[in-house]
Amino acid sequence: MANLHDIAYDLEKAIRDSDEYQTLTNAYKAVNADDVAKKMFDNFRQLQLTLQQKQMTGEQITEEEAQKAQQQVQLIQQHEAISNLMAAEQRMSMLITDLNKIITKPLEDIYGNPENLS
Amino acid sequence: MANLHDIAYDLEKAIRDSDEYQTLTNAYKAVNADDVAKKMFDNFRQLQLTLQQKQMTGEQITEEEAQKAQQQVQLIQQHEAISNLMAAEQRMSMLITDLNKIITKPLEDIYGNPENLS
Ligand SMILES: [Ca+2]
Ligand SMILES: [Ca+2]
Repeated sequence: MANLHDIAYDLEKAIRDSDEYQTLTNAYKAVNADDVAKKMFDNFRQLQLTLQQKQMTGEQITEEEAQKAQQQVQLIQQHEAISNLMAAEQRMSMLITDLNKIITKPLEDIYGNPENLS
Repeated sequence: MANLHDIAYDLEKAIRDSDEYQTLTNAYKAVNADDVAKKMFDNFRQLQLTLQQKQMTGEQITEEEAQKAQQQVQLIQQHEAISNLMAAEQRMSMLITDLNKIITKPLEDIYGNPENLS
């Protein structure tokens, strides 16, 4: 079989050539080319990051913050370029999750099911 | 080019066939076959997990806990099967980090260097 790293490079190229990746790239370019969409999306990402960091450090997320995030999702999804980007990100994320499941199976066989090794 | 998922399965097989993975599997089996080593290693992993969770939730790690972890590392590394396993885990981890860098490059091109897309 080909070298491990060569196969990883083949996989990188296949990801880059995939519909999922092409669609994501175009959707991301479209949002960045639209100043209003870009600003809305950046603000939303910033809010998401702030809330994620709070969750990770065990800080309480206030009802006001949760409502604000919910309202922002509804607001920005009315913008077509942004809702396209969010859909493309979700498809890409599903593909990456799929590939990761395949690739991490050998390690899962060791650490996830130690009884298989006895 | 072959199907994306087929390439991922090729990569999975190449990981499984690698020296790094074979060495890790054997090292893990050796620790699990040795009741003393297994108990020492499980205790150490448990302590690591506890400290990681504290860090993630922003809780302070006491000087006593840090010292205890340090002492446990020194203690268990004197056990040959365990120090073999820890070395094998480190080599495997470096390989996976390498592969991940290759595979995540397309996404990094979008999110890490947005200026490249303009
Ligand atoms: Ca512009
Ligand atoms: Ca035994």
